[in-house]
Amino acid sequence: MSFGDAEPGATNGGDPALAMRQLLERISLADETGLDVFGVGEHHRPDFPVSAPAVVLAAAAARTSRIRLTSAVTVLGSDDPVRVFQQFATVDQISDGRAEIIAGRGSFIESFPLFGYDLDDYEALFEEKLELLLALQEDERVTWSGSLRPSLDDRGVYPRPVQARIPISIAVGGTPASVARAGRLGLPLVIGIIGGSPDRFAPLAELYRTVGTESGHDPAALSVGVSSIGFVADSARTAAAAFSPAYARVMTQLGRERGWGPVSAAHVEQTLGPDSALVVGDPPAVVDRILSEHEMFGLDRFLLQPDIGGLPHDRVMRAIELFGTEVAPAVRTALAPVDAERTARGARGRSG
Amino acid sequence: MSFGDAEPGATNGGDPALAMRQLLERISLADETGLDVFGVGEHHRPDFPVSAPAVVLAAAAARTSRIRLTSAVTVLGSDDPVRVFQQFATVDQISDGRAEIIAGRGSFIESFPLFGYDLDDYEALFEEKLELLLALQEDERVTWSGSLRPSLDDRGVYPRPVQARIPISIAVGGTPASVARAGRLGLPLVIGIIGGSPDRFAPLAELYRTVGTESGHDPAALSVGVSSIGFVADSARTAAAAFSPAYARVMTQLGRERGWGPVSAAHVEQTLGPDSALVVGDPPAVVDRILSEHEMFGLDRFLLQPDIGGLPHDRVMRAIELFGTEVAPAVRTALAPVDAERTARGARGRSG
Repeated sequence: MSFGDAEPGATNGGDPALAMRQLLERISLADETGLDVFGVGEHHRPDFPVSAPAVVLAAAAARTSRIRLTSAVTVLGSDDPVRVFQQFATVDQISDGRAEIIAGRGSFIESFPLFGYDLDDYEALFEEKLELLLALQEDERVTWSGSLRPSLDDRGVYPRPVQARIPISIAVGGTPASVARAGRLGLPLVIGIIGGSPDRFAPLAELYRTVGTESGHDPAALSVGVSSIGFVADSARTAAAAFSPAYARVMTQLGRERGWGPVSAAHVEQTLGPDSALVVGDPPAVVDRILSEHEMFGLDRFLLQPDIGGLPHDRVMRAIELFGTEVAPAVRTALAPVDAERTARGARGRSG
Repeated sequence: MSFGDAEPGATNGGDPALAMRQLLERISLADETGLDVFGVGEHHRPDFPVSAPAVVLAAAAARTSRIRLTSAVTVLGSDDPVRVFQQFATVDQISDGRAEIIAGRGSFIESFPLFGYDLDDYEALFEEKLELLLALQEDERVTWSGSLRPSLDDRGVYPRPVQARIPISIAVGGTPASVARAGRLGLPLVIGIIGGSPDRFAPLAELYRTVGTESGHDPAALSVGVSSIGFVADSARTAAAAFSPAYARVMTQLGRERGWGPVSAAHVEQTLGPDSALVVGDPPAVVDRILSEHEMFGLDRFLLQPDIGGLPHDRVMRAIELFGTEVAPAVRTALAPVDAERTARGARGRSG
């Protein structure tokens, strides 16, 4: 996944069309290497220049043939669910059924004043708009009313997607109430691990499955994904050396806005390792990490964001190549028996 | 231009992904044949399934190299100018500077109840949102306030387009006040001729140029375009025979909603000719028509919509091929002396 980072330095920072072209090349390469899904995140800032993920995904859809294409995330509270549905239904048509939406409350807040929303309604906006988005999935004509979006009185929403339903997942940063909501609704969960040791998030996956099961959803349908910032390179040394200055730059920039101190590349390097939130290493290390998170969370999907801070394009392309041709196949091989067992269990569950 | 019509019959009506794939093939062919621009219209109805033009144009941008890509139209009054700007700036990046917006009040009204707007504000919504859209062109950070959209207090809007400004034209259906507004603002005008003899619209072009000049805009910068529904085929007979039943079907359907009587293909055929609003014929007839409108309006752009009513895909592809390889080159050749004269006059005007 990517936020379409525009590098402040040499590679693409001064040329928005080049930055966009590079992002589309990355998605095409991910498709060619056989990766399952690519996510593009919504922000409203100059350093993360994708504000309209569906528009980017449509261009990617026209250039790829197999990979699934998702927002990561759609900041649903400050958007209009009808527009979001229309845009992703259009991507679904263009991609012949490969569109997905990962909806979240948003970890940045720029979109709220930009679209005239009150941050006091942050939680209620998400709750209500998610309800409407889900209703749009169910019927072509919708009657709906809420308190934060104009009501719909038997209105048709077009176009209709190719898939019977566009998959909608819920992204969470660690808020138990958000995790419980995903479980209650029986929607796939994506945990964004941006700080802290991954094992700290295991209780969230457990909470999700407990609430989901208690709410009457089939345990086999309750899916957990993780997204992490990281990097893959041919050697652990190369990975850390490329990633650390880029990540330090982003954290220093964000720190200026949020009142944290500056971060050095050396400090980032020291924190890397199996207990870090960051997934940085050679292919075997990243495989181990994903398998260990699979043990912790019963992982169904792992999203890696390998281009934070505008890492040089050739290195990001190599990271995607390694992720698609070495990491993913090794993970699939290692988990094949587990998947077979789960499928068998699911079949027994359904037949029982 | 196209509304992405989904045929109710055999060709693509039952398969939204096929209809979308065909639309993208049409845009690619228009690019290959050397046409200047392709427009995609916004509607919120099952028969015209493009509700998110920028999403479709992004896919087209990824598959074309030269053709300009525009909405035709963006129903600006019921949309958010910030989202519209962000989406078209993204298309501008993907296409490396080929995005345009044609904004209009909209000739269909489905979008207003869908997005919670009052049709009593139809005119004021367009006026105010156009003002904001133009402000977003001028500065990266914008402070703005109005009465129908939340205000902006020094907010940055991203991404920024590749072009210094995304060209914004104003589409009108015949309302003199809308024509005068385009002139006052010095924005390119696009007259949608959907009924009546074309010469009835000549006073509008004159009004536009008068108001534009009186408002202090360079006459050379005041541009007039026309958009027409029509069809081109190898012979006049083939063109009329293919077009008439498709158009009759659409007019009968719309008539049901608007209280007109049904329309037969035979009736449509009888109305075709040089004085009709419809531009249907073999390439020489369409060339004559464009040249005659050039005389009437001082035409800078002519948009043909050759796929109304879901005409069969192979016939639409042939129409685009003829339009790009026979009609457009003949028009360019015929107007080369006029264009040279105008350029010279413009240069004299500027130097004087």
